Amino acid sequence: MSIKRILIANRGEIALRIHRAAHEMGIETVAVHSTADADAMHVRLADHAVCIGPPAATDSYLNVANIISAAEVSQCDAIHPGYGFLSENEKFAEIVEAHDIKWIGPKPEHIRTMGDKVAAKQTAGALGLPLVPGSDGAVSDYDEAKKIAKEIGYPVIIKAASGGGGRGMKVCESEDTIETLMKQAGSEAKAAFGDATVYIEKYLGNPRHIEFQVFGDGKGNAIHLGERDCSLQRRHQKVLEEAPSPVISREERMRMGEVCSKAMRDMGYRGAGTIEFLWEDGEFYFIEMNTRLQVEHPVTEAITGVDLVREQIRIAEGKPLSVAQEDLEFNGHAIECRINAEDPFTFAPSPGRVTYYHPAGGMHVRVDSGLYAGYSIPPYYDSMIAKLIVYGRNREGCIMRLRRALEEMVVEGVKTNIPLHQELLHQDDVLSGDYSIKWLEDWLAKRED
Amino acid sequence: MSIKRILIANRGEIALRIHRAAHEMGIETVAVHSTADADAMHVRLADHAVCIGPPAATDSYLNVANIISAAEVSQCDAIHPGYGFLSENEKFAEIVEAHDIKWIGPKPEHIRTMGDKVAAKQTAGALGLPLVPGSDGAVSDYDEAKKIAKEIGYPVIIKAASGGGGRGMKVCESEDTIETLMKQAGSEAKAAFGDATVYIEKYLGNPRHIEFQVFGDGKGNAIHLGERDCSLQRRHQKVLEEAPSPVISREERMRMGEVCSKAMRDMGYRGAGTIEFLWEDGEFYFIEMNTRLQVEHPVTEAITGVDLVREQIRIAEGKPLSVAQEDLEFNGHAIECRINAEDPFTFAPSPGRVTYYHPAGGMHVRVDSGLYAGYSIPPYYDSMIAKLIVYGRNREGCIMRLRRALEEMVVEGVKTNIPLHQELLHQDDVLSGDYSIKWLEDWLAKRED
Repeated sequence: MSIKRILIANRGEIALRIHRAAHEMGIETVAVHSTADADAMHVRLADHAVCIGPPAATDSYLNVANIISAAEVSQCDAIHPGYGFLSENEKFAEIVEAHDIKWIGPKPEHIRTMGDKVAAKQTAGALGLPLVPGSDGAVSDYDEAKKIAKEIGYPVIIKAASGGGGRGMKVCESEDTIETLMKQAGSEAKAAFGDATVYIEKYLGNPRHIEFQVFGDGKGNAIHLGERDCSLQRRHQKVLEEAPSPVISREERMRMGEVCSKAMRDMGYRGAGTIEFLWEDGEFYFIEMNTRLQVEHPVTEAITGVDLVREQIRIAEGKPLSVAQEDLEFNGHAIECRINAEDPFTFAPSPGRVTYYHPAGGMHVRVDSGLYAGYSIPPYYDSMIAKLIVYGRNREGCIMRLRRALEEMVVEGVKTNIPLHQELLHQDDVLSGDYSIKWLEDWLAKRED
Repeated sequence: MSIKRILIANRGEIALRIHRAAHEMGIETVAVHSTADADAMHVRLADHAVCIGPPAATDSYLNVANIISAAEVSQCDAIHPGYGFLSENEKFAEIVEAHDIKWIGPKPEHIRTMGDKVAAKQTAGALGLPLVPGSDGAVSDYDEAKKIAKEIGYPVIIKAASGGGGRGMKVCESEDTIETLMKQAGSEAKAAFGDATVYIEKYLGNPRHIEFQVFGDGKGNAIHLGERDCSLQRRHQKVLEEAPSPVISREERMRMGEVCSKAMRDMGYRGAGTIEFLWEDGEFYFIEMNTRLQVEHPVTEAITGVDLVREQIRIAEGKPLSVAQEDLEFNGHAIECRINAEDPFTFAPSPGRVTYYHPAGGMHVRVDSGLYAGYSIPPYYDSMIAKLIVYGRNREGCIMRLRRALEEMVVEGVKTNIPLHQELLHQDDVLSGDYSIKWLEDWLAKRED
């Protein structure tokens, strides 16, 4: 029943995060790494390490055969996939379970359902999650598209069914352009994802990104851990996340959280999940569900005191959730800054050798990072090198502490977006919490002028 | 009313701690430093810095004239003394206030009273704090001493009235030796403190050190923030501290806490204070009161969420306490390891250049330290170079997390006591919380064999 040794099928800060939770539970860890990551922190700290391939992720962190072999050779009884890479690959989850290794993640069928945008939307709707009004699935016929768009009201947005990251997305302002834009979206989607299928939705002009953390035990029990507000985004990449959201009341949190956890109970969902919504004028609209841990999970940990990775491991062991909904309290405020190795003005990645590193410290400051002085940030992977998570009794106190922590944080040898975060935390709209998912790009555009 | 610029009359991690609290309140900081500390972290981070003298503390951190001049030149409107150095020097406090600079500390008369062991004991008794049975003040007459010792029952302990750190202390097992030991204690006290006065107390064979954190607003309101257990000591120096104590129930905490806070209300105490007790067989015995912040204050911060330095500053500004006793909650468990630059076996100090430094990170791990790679630990001051404070939902989880954090902590170039902490956290008595103030020295003696 109890897990004794976990293979961590990931890299960077999240591999370290999983290692920490495992060691705190007395569980051994096996790191896997590409040749580019042999000196990574999580490799150094793990009890065992296995090289699984060359730098390219397809040959290493996405190499199912090598990862399964590593797990067998090192006699792991569980695999934690982290986020990204194979974390939402239901085939990998099935293979892991077929090898009689515990999969620290949701049931493969739920990964599959939520991984398909059209199926996810249908499922969410059936489970009672509020949807963005739109086509009931794929649309290929132009007349049908026009009819749907008229019902919803312009502007509408055309989206790729298999898409993500903004590719295959087109905002349509009127019937005149719908055919052209559908064709463009379809061909972009085809090129990017090998699938030209598109669908149509109500276009939200200035929404916030608000997501609910949920947890199920796979046996029909589920809880929510409140929301995170991740509206500060650039090119669909979250930059700064906070919990709770400045615009959600306690009543709304508990009401919407119950809608989410009921959906998870009805699904029989297992493990950690995040239900993402757009929010505008007091209404929630389901976007997608992520069937894995999120980068920004620590802000939820900070305001609830619940260790989400520990909870994931417990559930994979077949144990119940360690906390009941009625015992869960939301205290204070937390903000996470994603520290990226990139130019703070051009956003060009800045890999290379870190000549000096000094993280922030002190009360209610958490740093999740695999950085160390002398470490070479490889150019092959994501540019996020650290997460700075700060807690305060209220939002204002949290922001003041975050500013203080950013003053202390030193990363030399590569460029980072620390100056961007410092600038953001002096903007009136950020201080007042008055921002939508478009705010950051608008502000950046103005800054360039 | 509001403080705008604080002079921090200290060095090391506590100077940094005060700087952090100040910046989080939007208050500027002025660091003072000896020539040995020009490159110290708190000096680098402060808004302004003033050199106040050569390395010897008497010429710099204890140099009242230079510190007052620095405060005037840099236009500070408040001074925070930290702990040690001038923090419990009532004359310094008076001089600060006479210069119309706010003293972030208790009223000078309370510093004076509690600084004199005999007066402190009398005051504590009058305020209703439980005392160790003993002589009512100084004893010089041998017959009187014998009479008192008989009433208390042997063994008794003879202590220097102006003493501390074990000097001038003698345990007396029977009437035969009391004269000789009083003479020895008196002459040791005279040599060490310039005062031969001694007193007699009940000797506690195997007590724990349990102290209550109190806070007063100087206007008759006061609260307690629960206890800390600091029984793991070597030569009267605390090594590891925790909150709450493994042996104190919630009822006992609230009962004894109320005794302490009532005493502070009756005194009209202002600011942070710690009332130290020995505890044996369910009974508390007052030892002394420290009229300042303690090294181990972060464990209290961890379980209450109250920022004690912020609270000190607020009170110096004439503001009320930010939290009422009835709103204060005690959640989870926290342990602090004092990381010293010393040989973990011989305890010989190990100053010098830190060639590599990597603090622990992750959830509920706090590091308070002025260390950085390239920093030279000067040989002139205390050997404590960092405090590692870890929080967990319960004591067991806290210990597991602390072990994990210690695994990650790297300090190269000097020796540290990290291996000692790692060893301690695997001892059955430490795991079960079954230790007195004598445990560590007994264990070290056995380890040497």
